[in-house]
Amino acid sequence: MSNERTIPYKIYLNESEIPTAWYNLRADMKNKPAPLLNPGTLQPMTAEELSGVFCDELVQQELDDTNAYIPIPEEIRNFYKMYRPSPLVRAYCLEEKLQTPAKIYYKFEGNNTSGSHKLNSAIAQAYYAKKQGLKGVTTETGAGQWGTALSMACAYFGLDCLVYMVKVSYEQKPFRREVMRTYGATVTPSPSNTTEVGRKILAEHPGTTGSLGCAISEAVEAEATREGYRYVLGSVLNQVLLHQTVIGLETKAALDKYNIVPDIIIGCAGGGSNLGGLVSPFAGEMLRGERNYRIIAVEPASCPSFTRGVFAYDFCDTGKVCPLAKMYTLGSSFIPSANHAGGLRYHGMSPILSQLYHDGYMEAVSVEQTAVFEAATQFARVEGILPAPESSHAIRVAIDEALKCKETGEEKTIVFGLTGTGYFDMVAYEKFNNHEMSDYIPTDEDLKPGFDGIPKFPGNEF
Amino acid sequence: MSNERTIPYKIYLNESEIPTAWYNLRADMKNKPAPLLNPGTLQPMTAEELSGVFCDELVQQELDDTNAYIPIPEEIRNFYKMYRPSPLVRAYCLEEKLQTPAKIYYKFEGNNTSGSHKLNSAIAQAYYAKKQGLKGVTTETGAGQWGTALSMACAYFGLDCLVYMVKVSYEQKPFRREVMRTYGATVTPSPSNTTEVGRKILAEHPGTTGSLGCAISEAVEAEATREGYRYVLGSVLNQVLLHQTVIGLETKAALDKYNIVPDIIIGCAGGGSNLGGLVSPFAGEMLRGERNYRIIAVEPASCPSFTRGVFAYDFCDTGKVCPLAKMYTLGSSFIPSANHAGGLRYHGMSPILSQLYHDGYMEAVSVEQTAVFEAATQFARVEGILPAPESSHAIRVAIDEALKCKETGEEKTIVFGLTGTGYFDMVAYEKFNNHEMSDYIPTDEDLKPGFDGIPKFPGNEF
Repeated sequence: MSNERTIPYKIYLNESEIPTAWYNLRADMKNKPAPLLNPGTLQPMTAEELSGVFCDELVQQELDDTNAYIPIPEEIRNFYKMYRPSPLVRAYCLEEKLQTPAKIYYKFEGNNTSGSHKLNSAIAQAYYAKKQGLKGVTTETGAGQWGTALSMACAYFGLDCLVYMVKVSYEQKPFRREVMRTYGATVTPSPSNTTEVGRKILAEHPGTTGSLGCAISEAVEAEATREGYRYVLGSVLNQVLLHQTVIGLETKAALDKYNIVPDIIIGCAGGGSNLGGLVSPFAGEMLRGERNYRIIAVEPASCPSFTRGVFAYDFCDTGKVCPLAKMYTLGSSFIPSANHAGGLRYHGMSPILSQLYHDGYMEAVSVEQTAVFEAATQFARVEGILPAPESSHAIRVAIDEALKCKETGEEKTIVFGLTGTGYFDMVAYEKFNNHEMSDYIPTDEDLKPGFDGIPKFPGNEF
Repeated sequence: MSNERTIPYKIYLNESEIPTAWYNLRADMKNKPAPLLNPGTLQPMTAEELSGVFCDELVQQELDDTNAYIPIPEEIRNFYKMYRPSPLVRAYCLEEKLQTPAKIYYKFEGNNTSGSHKLNSAIAQAYYAKKQGLKGVTTETGAGQWGTALSMACAYFGLDCLVYMVKVSYEQKPFRREVMRTYGATVTPSPSNTTEVGRKILAEHPGTTGSLGCAISEAVEAEATREGYRYVLGSVLNQVLLHQTVIGLETKAALDKYNIVPDIIIGCAGGGSNLGGLVSPFAGEMLRGERNYRIIAVEPASCPSFTRGVFAYDFCDTGKVCPLAKMYTLGSSFIPSANHAGGLRYHGMSPILSQLYHDGYMEAVSVEQTAVFEAATQFARVEGILPAPESSHAIRVAIDEALKCKETGEEKTIVFGLTGTGYFDMVAYEKFNNHEMSDYIPTDEDLKPGFDGIPKFPGNEF
């Protein structure tokens, strides 16, 4: 079945085919994602309130749910040209290995030094910060992909970059930290005693190795206490999903070039930025009633926001200093088991994707990590790319769907997002190679404290 | 000067433009590289003698100095399609940063999981081993790029892969080792007690952290004592340079497409495979009297084979079990200072490049490592790629040449080989970031023991 290789291994668009505008899916949503709320007043955050935290143009993008296309500034497109268009790869070797009639494609976002899709939004956010005349930005990073991407973007525009890195990652991934330093960023392990909220968390939980929620709180405080800085975030927010639509727009353009219509579109989901970016143009067709796809979000069984979370207003951070977002959440105090190896550790989920899921436009599945690393290794050996653990969640389900096709004989077309490479995740691979990796599924009892911490107010029943 | 960006950032060839034949530079050389000698008889190695060590078709390629083009088998081209053609990138951002009128291009070979150009030859060598019905191959690796590439190639063809990894690298780069294991390779720190030569070296030099020369000796012995195995090597040999000509052929095709004629071609040189592959088509034009280029080999000041070595027959390995090659050498017992951070640690040099250098077709310069890491960091911050320390030697000299153009106002076109990425070299970057890196230039006294170990026989005066 693999001899008729009329489609190239890698479909590359030309530089001139890099999208000139991001696609704003909210414009086509009948049920718009709920607005961010001020945690004090429970009223929707105004542009003015948000502009103390985010750059002005990013605030506009965050709030805009009517304009379908937002032009991509020339400076950002020029940066995109350094690593985009990214290839859409036909997984011929994987298909042959699986002996499946399915046709598998993946959009590979790992061919840049940050090692992931995160750079697509990092460069946009850095650009608007520079344009606004700011000195620098603050952020948090978990596994380190976002921090690396932002460091690169800030180096390019000459901005200061302060990164709060979840302490357990800071210690286990010194090389990630070092890449950020090479790009000129200042990296602080979180929780730290450089912020009030950090000191408070340290006092309450001595010896904690941190969480993404803690690091967000610290980064927001670091921004608030510095002149000429703004806070930036690598996922969850509407603006981030907007920037990531370059992934989906390029994917669709490449498929269209060869008249390929996918049946199933698969992406891993942590905060939702890669999945949201990949599926936006396809979900838009569904929302406009033009076409149907199966869209599948894949999350770790140890951090199951979609599959076991509730759809409610919740805090985006552990320190509860950020606005409330309506999303699928496990509660802002939820911290995944230390056993969990990869990223995708966020307690919440993009409000846009949460709404789509709630309205039935998406499915979600959770997978256990040993099965994920089995898929990662199988993929690496035939396709030649060592995938990030995060991305490997999507590989797992793509393989599962392809194997179903083998049983049924269906020639389905599967597209998945290969968001990044695993070069800085070799500790996890080593555990897997040594058969020292295990699975962990939280019990209902484990999840209860997280749910108990979700704020209760009228209209926030769950 | 950077506004007229008529040439794309990245020149991508189509899949169909991947070369269908490797170019054998030796066919155009009037002074052929000297043959390998049997160290016992001092007679040229016959095909029969070599076939005990190498696969039969690779032996033919090693000895063939008359056929200008060797067809690339379809199976190898199919694998190349997974990561080739590699982009030829116009370094617009670096040019702007340097404010130079020079036009800088680099051929980027790092966009594959092995992280370097080594995969180009690894897949070829694995293919011929598979075709000959072998069970597996043995090899050595220093910094780990070659071992990783070979592991990937062997996983693809289902071959066993035994890697002897220089002990200091094995210990300092556990993640490199882990990538190889993920691809199913068996990795042994060298010197080890699994071979006779390893035990001998350990007895003579207790506590040694190994060298490439030691690891070669062990890998060759491991091959000789196993049924159905052959030894493979990642550089130096004629066959390896032959496979690496895909780099130069693609580079030339991309330049030709836009009528660009380079003035200067620069590559780093350890064993010479990347440099040889990049420059072969250009050197061919020089040899045929069609055109002239400045070709510059860049090597570390701490391992200066070209700039301070002698042109003589020498052993390729420390254990003196391999044939003798006529090359620029520092002596097979030379081991670079522990202070030296990157690869490019081999005592000798490709016989093909050695002959070209000897005949005046190439220049060579040596650079110190802090200057190399300065260039690496400068490049990373504007071009967005974190380069391997090896590749950064070429970046250093490309920047130096571009700065000369700034002084003279000349609009020279510079092409250099960016052979790989530095994701597994963050210990070295950390040293540099912490200002703990220093330079080391061996004294003549330091080099003397190496030269004393070069065999003396009639015709081998130096």
